[in-house]
Amino acid sequence: MQAGFPSLQMFGIKTPLIRPGDNIADIIIGSLEKQDMQFQDNDVLIIAESPLATSEKRLVCLADIDPGEKANKLAEEYQLDAREMELILQECDEIFGGVPGAALTITKGTLAPNAGIDGSNAPEGYVVLLPKNAQESAGRIRREIKDRCKCKIGVIIGDSRTQPLRLGCVGIALGTSGMVPVEDARGTLDLFGKEMVITRKAMADNLVSAAQLLMGEAGESVPAVLVRGAPVQIVDDDIEMPLFSRDECMYYSNIRKA
Amino acid sequence: MQAGFPSLQMFGIKTPLIRPGDNIADIIIGSLEKQDMQFQDNDVLIIAESPLATSEKRLVCLADIDPGEKANKLAEEYQLDAREMELILQECDEIFGGVPGAALTITKGTLAPNAGIDGSNAPEGYVVLLPKNAQESAGRIRREIKDRCKCKIGVIIGDSRTQPLRLGCVGIALGTSGMVPVEDARGTLDLFGKEMVITRKAMADNLVSAAQLLMGEAGESVPAVLVRGAPVQIVDDDIEMPLFSRDECMYYSNIRKA
Repeated sequence: MQAGFPSLQMFGIKTPLIRPGDNIADIIIGSLEKQDMQFQDNDVLIIAESPLATSEKRLVCLADIDPGEKANKLAEEYQLDAREMELILQECDEIFGGVPGAALTITKGTLAPNAGIDGSNAPEGYVVLLPKNAQESAGRIRREIKDRCKCKIGVIIGDSRTQPLRLGCVGIALGTSGMVPVEDARGTLDLFGKEMVITRKAMADNLVSAAQLLMGEAGESVPAVLVRGAPVQIVDDDIEMPLFSRDECMYYSNIRKA
Repeated sequence: MQAGFPSLQMFGIKTPLIRPGDNIADIIIGSLEKQDMQFQDNDVLIIAESPLATSEKRLVCLADIDPGEKANKLAEEYQLDAREMELILQECDEIFGGVPGAALTITKGTLAPNAGIDGSNAPEGYVVLLPKNAQESAGRIRREIKDRCKCKIGVIIGDSRTQPLRLGCVGIALGTSGMVPVEDARGTLDLFGKEMVITRKAMADNLVSAAQLLMGEAGESVPAVLVRGAPVQIVDDDIEMPLFSRDECMYYSNIRKA
């Protein structure tokens, strides 16, 4: 006889267009009800950062931006709109270099082309900045769902990234609440009973990548995904994404400072 | 009224321990039957590279390896076993540098710490090299399942990678067959009817990351995952992973040559 096998389900949540000032928890709860579903304990909700940022009024009209000298220079170098480059400089922690169309930055602690600023899914002439604090947003949404739906879930704010030397976007978690975002498999045993040494599982990043299978990037209006049955450690608390020391990172330690 | 919403299901496939010379397609089909399941058209099967490589006899006994001068020097620099470093040199296309415990390489076209060589889930004193040609393995397994189960599925050989400045492993596809691994969203329209410019979706990489939620890295014996309902373009053909030009990659173009 075969013992039970692991499985999970994922459901895209279709919503109306999210607008500045909207309460996104409210919209998601309502949209889920329209799909004849409701949250259950141990669900994980993944929300795309761009609609969240829009609801948090992080839309910027490019016509309002007056680029400075540094922005003009870098915009030419990286073939970007100088007003967007000005916003990148304001938003990012550091710039490392770039390629035509993308400045490579660290923004809010993670690598992000163009400081995560995106013109897609924004009205013509506007761009969307990253949520001001994705961790706080995740916590706020989690608590609102906990209060209204009486269940303990994990919430992840997800974004897209390219991986080095890979074509196409995968998922990354900008902030999480109510779950362990990176699980430590060190000390567990492998198939041969040997102790695993360095393996950590990026549960939150993997959940965002999974969600992106259903989200799409274009006009699909599926800004959130519900994952049910994933072996995630749900906790009634905010756990910050652990930081990775720059010296430990084999990529970073080989990135040339611009 | 709400239109249909996207959803998918994922099932871990529990197998016996995979040994050198095993027919992995055979084991997966048998294990799925024991779970009272069978393949359906448009399913995607994700197989972890390490058990596949084991079945393909890519296990190497470290005691058989005699490290050369270069391997001894680099092993000291990166704090690696000199015999493993010798294998890394034999397997990789290029070495860029590294950090303690990991040499940063390009191997079979993708970035891979230590040329993808892994001591986890191998017997004591052995390591597992990457499958010789993951694309070919995916094609062979897909065709065997197609012949025996009479259905058209996608097959992905998956591995783990860290992302730059992130803690924890996510998924990456080493080879695929029967599906479009990277979908091109350029030309589609965003929520505001504007044309999307640069977005490609790494469907295969995201499917591996999703599968890793159920696979685990340690002794779980879930080396394969079945994904049902994912909006993947299934094709009765082998499509190679498209290559990303090094100049286009914002990471690569900023990596200092060691």
